[in-house]
Amino acid sequence: MTSQTGADSTRDRIVTAATAEFSRHGIAGARIDRIAKAARTSKERVYAYFRSKEELYRFVSGRELAAIAEATRMDPADLPGYAGRIHDYFTAHPERHRLMIWGQLELGPDDAPEDDPVRQTMTHKTEQLRSSQEAGHLEPSWDPLDVLILVNQIATSWANQPDLTAGVPLHERADYMAARRAAVVAAVQRLFPTARAQAGERR
Amino acid sequence: MTSQTGADSTRDRIVTAATAEFSRHGIAGARIDRIAKAARTSKERVYAYFRSKEELYRFVSGRELAAIAEATRMDPADLPGYAGRIHDYFTAHPERHRLMIWGQLELGPDDAPEDDPVRQTMTHKTEQLRSSQEAGHLEPSWDPLDVLILVNQIATSWANQPDLTAGVPLHERADYMAARRAAVVAAVQRLFPTARAQAGERR
Repeated sequence: MTSQTGADSTRDRIVTAATAEFSRHGIAGARIDRIAKAARTSKERVYAYFRSKEELYRFVSGRELAAIAEATRMDPADLPGYAGRIHDYFTAHPERHRLMIWGQLELGPDDAPEDDPVRQTMTHKTEQLRSSQEAGHLEPSWDPLDVLILVNQIATSWANQPDLTAGVPLHERADYMAARRAAVVAAVQRLFPTARAQAGERR
Repeated sequence: MTSQTGADSTRDRIVTAATAEFSRHGIAGARIDRIAKAARTSKERVYAYFRSKEELYRFVSGRELAAIAEATRMDPADLPGYAGRIHDYFTAHPERHRLMIWGQLELGPDDAPEDDPVRQTMTHKTEQLRSSQEAGHLEPSWDPLDVLILVNQIATSWANQPDLTAGVPLHERADYMAARRAAVVAAVQRLFPTARAQAGERR
């Protein structure tokens, strides 16, 4: 939908500014006038594109959710690899994890529209996991929803622990984070082992 | 320190009101005048007890952290049981999980004082886990910090997922949550098996 017209680029600037503002301050704490200023436009223009602050947040977080899905691509036959990609994504972009967590804290389940992208993504992924169980690539005793939540929790272990790396000397930080990543992947591997290693017929 | 004098009960009411206010709105979103009103006192009295909103938050969250530790009691020889207790605590008191998460989001590591209770608790617990490894009750290949974070992440899987239970009919919710709890405990058991079952000499 993006084009080089002035209208679209204003909208793009609003979305970029809103992403930064929501990530830093959350929904209640975000200020539309700050977003407008950062996007070099007016409050009125912001409300012309998005009817409310909450609608703007939902747009921005839905867009981010799609970006996360694109960058991390769940492979139900290789959950340890998926966990490693989530870990990498959020340690590289901690502000994007913050963006999503604010929504969890500030928006109740009753506010979520039927077509809420978080809910849709979860439904799609649990279906993928169920198929993987049926194909014999994932232990069938787990409820797919538990698998999804557990993998996600383990994979985001380090996304919001800035104080735990703050004490590590800079020149040791790469090794330190590599060890943390290895533990995340090892934990998921022990719970939900990669099917590929066991199933030689898969590419 | 609590007594029946008027001064102390005002302070207690402030702490109770602040706990509810921070849990609902976070730190930036909390309003000292709302806290004062709920505590039937004045803004000036609140600032007489706590110099700033952040100091009040740190007091409240430190107190909550102690309450969590008291209610869940980490037993390094029985991490699945510990995870179950954390799960129970936060599904019974989701607002207390919110209270802690706001601090993670809003307070940077540089703000944390040396005697930060979160940091102190983590240091104490990693030492307990290290001793448990030395005593042969916990696999020594894990870094104790990873064990602590992984157990905590798994145990809090359901603390902030209101939208996932919202769709479950009321009469099925108890069974539904029992299944979620069982998955949490099973995951920790698979990663860090209870030493007691293996070590008959322990009580």
